[in-house]
Amino acid sequence: MTAGTVSVIGLGPGDPRYLTPAAAAALAAATDIVGYGPYVDRVPAQSGQRRHPSDNRVEVDRARAALDLAAGGARVAVVSGGDPGVFAMAAALFEAYETDPARWRDVGIHVEPGITAMLAAAARIGAPLGGDFCAMSLSDNLKPWEVILHRLDAALSADFVIALYNPISRARPWQLGEALKRVAAARPAATPVVFARAVGRADEAVRILTAASAAAAAAGADMATLVLIGASTTRLVARESGEAFVYTPRSVGTRP
Amino acid sequence: MTAGTVSVIGLGPGDPRYLTPAAAAALAAATDIVGYGPYVDRVPAQSGQRRHPSDNRVEVDRARAALDLAAGGARVAVVSGGDPGVFAMAAALFEAYETDPARWRDVGIHVEPGITAMLAAAARIGAPLGGDFCAMSLSDNLKPWEVILHRLDAALSADFVIALYNPISRARPWQLGEALKRVAAARPAATPVVFARAVGRADEAVRILTAASAAAAAAGADMATLVLIGASTTRLVARESGEAFVYTPRSVGTRP
Repeated sequence: MTAGTVSVIGLGPGDPRYLTPAAAAALAAATDIVGYGPYVDRVPAQSGQRRHPSDNRVEVDRARAALDLAAGGARVAVVSGGDPGVFAMAAALFEAYETDPARWRDVGIHVEPGITAMLAAAARIGAPLGGDFCAMSLSDNLKPWEVILHRLDAALSADFVIALYNPISRARPWQLGEALKRVAAARPAATPVVFARAVGRADEAVRILTAASAAAAAAGADMATLVLIGASTTRLVARESGEAFVYTPRSVGTRP
Repeated sequence: MTAGTVSVIGLGPGDPRYLTPAAAAALAAATDIVGYGPYVDRVPAQSGQRRHPSDNRVEVDRARAALDLAAGGARVAVVSGGDPGVFAMAAALFEAYETDPARWRDVGIHVEPGITAMLAAAARIGAPLGGDFCAMSLSDNLKPWEVILHRLDAALSADFVIALYNPISRARPWQLGEALKRVAAARPAATPVVFARAVGRADEAVRILTAASAAAAAAGADMATLVLIGASTTRLVARESGEAFVYTPRSVGTRP
């Protein structure tokens, strides 16, 4: 029997207008759709295609199951929101693969990029990523909180724009507030901080705060929120007609 | 006369299979296409649509011209490779806007995200962005070299995966080698470093190097190359059948 393939596919922010044609073609060619239930629900049903929705835990088990399906000849699409390589399923797939490479030796593995939340949120509000930037997961499920703080301090020292993924959850209620207090101590008070929730979906909600005000608003964020912290140069541009923009000029004058 | 609109549009890595339907629709609705010549060339010709190709300099002048066209009623598409908000035209547009906000008060401004080079390169080789990461432009045209070195050192201290945009050009021949020497001093010798050139285009070329070998190979990079520097945890996964993968596990054990 010929082994099949696993494609790890980025669905983008949710609106099908942000799904790439390459990702759409890979979904259409799949025999099996594997992923967290709400992401599987985004894929249009197709006759003859099997669907394997799961909860959002134990990504490595899900990835092993996908590799086993492919070893049996299936063309498996593992679906992620945003981009699968950014705090999503692609790394979990390779972690799973490394637990038993011989078993999945002949399985073809392919990653289809997507519009990650950081890019969707940035485009929605202007051009906050116009300078150097970093992306961090604020979840301490997979790394110690001290590592997160060390990285946050390094990012503040570098004057990076900072995109925080997984900023808060019921099990991690205080971490975002702590992080934003550190931001308030390091950045000018008026520096824009944006809570961009579910950009490109029906329940989109975008709030433009400041380094001074953001920590007190942390409880208003949730797991669907992308938090964008401006660099010291990031600017708010008010408009007489329409919403304000946030952008980061490309130039940096002096050492931060 | 009713003012028009400027949409800053990300074309993605080049292959139309990575152009989002939203970006394609914005291009089709435009009366005028503005941008660096090779990007304008990627947009299928459409009767009645004016094309304004330019060189790749003085982005702010190009952005002012686009805003003026829109103030006269045009629906202008300003095109960028990749994502327009990542080292591309979106920030330049807002810089231009701020030089004379009253003049363009009624112009609608919109940004359409795209697959930036970092995401395309990452998907091509596996999942190197599986952990926290940063993106920096190595060009010292718009910021002093000392700022770049300070940021690079902070990123190395944070153990971020590092994506370097604009790594080298004829006018900036030595900076990439210098940066990679710093990487070699800070990261384990076997850490994967990837030169991903023109991913998704006909002249694609991907080289997987190491922290120890990359500096000596710097002259092999060019402006179309995205340099991805692994974190200390980033791994190479050799495969008996097919190309090796590079990925970064999601977990971090201890403070870097």
